[in-house]
Amino acid sequence: MAGVKIYGKPISTCTARVLLCLEEVGAEYQLVSINMPSGEHKGPAHLARNPFGQIPALEDGDLVLFESRAISKYVLRKYKESGTDLLKEGNLAESAMVEVWLEAESQQYNPAISPIVWQSLIVPKMYGGTPDQAIIDSSLEKLKKVLEVYEARLSKSKYLAGNFFSLADLSHFPFTRYLMITPYASVFESYPHVKAWWEDITSRPAFKKVSAGMLGS
Amino acid sequence: MAGVKIYGKPISTCTARVLLCLEEVGAEYQLVSINMPSGEHKGPAHLARNPFGQIPALEDGDLVLFESRAISKYVLRKYKESGTDLLKEGNLAESAMVEVWLEAESQQYNPAISPIVWQSLIVPKMYGGTPDQAIIDSSLEKLKKVLEVYEARLSKSKYLAGNFFSLADLSHFPFTRYLMITPYASVFESYPHVKAWWEDITSRPAFKKVSAGMLGS
Repeated sequence: MAGVKIYGKPISTCTARVLLCLEEVGAEYQLVSINMPSGEHKGPAHLARNPFGQIPALEDGDLVLFESRAISKYVLRKYKESGTDLLKEGNLAESAMVEVWLEAESQQYNPAISPIVWQSLIVPKMYGGTPDQAIIDSSLEKLKKVLEVYEARLSKSKYLAGNFFSLADLSHFPFTRYLMITPYASVFESYPHVKAWWEDITSRPAFKKVSAGMLGS
Repeated sequence: MAGVKIYGKPISTCTARVLLCLEEVGAEYQLVSINMPSGEHKGPAHLARNPFGQIPALEDGDLVLFESRAISKYVLRKYKESGTDLLKEGNLAESAMVEVWLEAESQQYNPAISPIVWQSLIVPKMYGGTPDQAIIDSSLEKLKKVLEVYEARLSKSKYLAGNFFSLADLSHFPFTRYLMITPYASVFESYPHVKAWWEDITSRPAFKKVSAGMLGS
């Protein structure tokens, strides 16, 4: 019994999100590497797993899933007996707050932070290109507005969904991990509660392990 | 007992998503209108409900929620005894497929369709502006690629998550409803299974009711 299979790359932010969930619940899994430079993610075998040709995908017997946030929930539900409950689905109000801040990550935080990471890290490091400073600057302004909201929230509760660590916090890890190795890491210095939250997250064993497979380690 | 309160506008796509869920489960609710032109959504009373200053927000006693997809799940969970089960959370594989296609809506479909609706409907109709044709054209190309994936999926199952109607289908309604009153509605003609799925969705009583409060009715 080899557990679930994850098709992806540890350096990919969306793959890292899923790996974090698997590590948090202590699940057995097999990571199957997808060769992106050769276009394997756009080939028929992978398109059968993810019709949008992206990573990661999960295979668990006959069940095939894509979209990292959806896979993350499946993993956390499947292994909920592990004792690690990052969804709080047994409590209507708590699970609602997890969903609210998971959507905040998806709809507010991610659209602001990902262009900064893309332009300042991925474009030069992986494609040998020149960052577009106008995109970085406008995204930094957006990110600051989002971080103001997070600072107010995290001054009232230790984690985003409440005084418990959840998938909402975890889901912010991959792009924040990469922002921290760009010249724009210092943006967090103005938000002490956000910074303390980040330091708390990165001290978790699962995060240290997944982080070690990412760029800049 | 007035049920939950929704702060928003029926013409807003994100408000419409939540109203559809409330109508599907037959919940009692109160819609409290937010005056966007006067900036009420950026005022302190609404920022206390939604710190990002957007609509909708939900109030249920002391619980205050924002982000339409998170509110939708809360409503469907709270009223799951209604007999309308749009999340399938009692079944691990089915709930996973609902999450996969809900994320496909959020991460693939919405980013392609929303700029078309924004440029061709909202900009001229609500702001008296001129649509940016380059944005429309590039978004149409993206939307066609997404619709190819949907066509393949819907040729194998009646609905996105399987042979059952779910939040994943529902969540596509608001922007598609608006695309259908733009000059680009005909893009659906090339995808017969997608078109049949759309006609099925729009025949639901909840959809007719919510649609009547939207633009172009």
